[in-house]
Amino acid sequence: MLLPEGVVIDGRTGSVTPSTDRYEKRLSDLRGFFRDDAALDRAIEAGGDPIAYEVFDFRHADSDLAFGTTIMMPGKVGVEFYLTRGHFHLRKECGEAYYTQSGEGLLLLESRAGETRTVEMKPGVCAFIPPDWGHRSINTGKDKLVFVWFCATDAGHDYGAIKDRGMRKLVVERDGKPALVDNPNFA
Amino acid sequence: MLLPEGVVIDGRTGSVTPSTDRYEKRLSDLRGFFRDDAALDRAIEAGGDPIAYEVFDFRHADSDLAFGTTIMMPGKVGVEFYLTRGHFHLRKECGEAYYTQSGEGLLLLESRAGETRTVEMKPGVCAFIPPDWGHRSINTGKDKLVFVWFCATDAGHDYGAIKDRGMRKLVVERDGKPALVDNPNFA
Repeated sequence: MLLPEGVVIDGRTGSVTPSTDRYEKRLSDLRGFFRDDAALDRAIEAGGDPIAYEVFDFRHADSDLAFGTTIMMPGKVGVEFYLTRGHFHLRKECGEAYYTQSGEGLLLLESRAGETRTVEMKPGVCAFIPPDWGHRSINTGKDKLVFVWFCATDAGHDYGAIKDRGMRKLVVERDGKPALVDNPNFA
Repeated sequence: MLLPEGVVIDGRTGSVTPSTDRYEKRLSDLRGFFRDDAALDRAIEAGGDPIAYEVFDFRHADSDLAFGTTIMMPGKVGVEFYLTRGHFHLRKECGEAYYTQSGEGLLLLESRAGETRTVEMKPGVCAFIPPDWGHRSINTGKDKLVFVWFCATDAGHDYGAIKDRGMRKLVVERDGKPALVDNPNFA
């Protein structure tokens, strides 16, 4: 039987104690997700293939609800801010909540019909991701971006759609500020 | 179609903006949940039937995931700390997460088999409530206890089981500290 638990979340570091899983993505794991492959090569070379983001899970198959944290490092590949791969849920009826704890960023969302929306990520904002909206997080700040996510345990991740076609918009630095621009590589 | 939204949560006051619903429970609404009816009458009389807790919802029928806040006032009825009614979920497969933002309290849980567990509620602790555990929150501090809850939209609330029988344990003040004691009224 699953037992209740007090899971300690550090809103600065994003650590989850206890956690059931952890993974990290380095820049080299994100090839194909940034616009500029040559800039990616340079960023990997210059930074020793740095970690772009980490994910901690608190997930039990016997519970319908899972949660965890995502910790995104600050940085850019060319003019494009560090991003997560982005995904739809395999179960189309599943939404998600991203509750930002520290840092600042942009949640970029795309509906199946191709509509783009953004939600500002900053402490105190709990972003509501409706079912069947693809979503990607982007760290537009100078510090770590840490958020807690909550979703159905069996929501599943479909990374393929966004990997194959990209998203319609990119978030780049322009005049020192984040700007949403068309993705020239969108298939 | 449901649209993404940045829902602003104030961890001090518990306000949720925008919210889809709000309700409050005054002490008179909690008759039958405290051990001592005479003490309840006195507390209602003395405080002008004060609010014991408020709940804000962000809930859409077209999303599987709902969230919101609970704001518990500090106080006691006799020696017993202010509490929520407590509930099981109607859908037994549904768990919940309670992420404390400010204040301090105790989450009191009871399995169907009658096992009691507690989880300390304090900022940074996300309490994991497994499916089919009854749960009640108790404000054991001097300030408001504010937490954000996340659960399936259709989990449903079964308040009856706990209202009819009570929970096996109570949380009372003893020597200035919260103590877990047997409930003499447990049916």
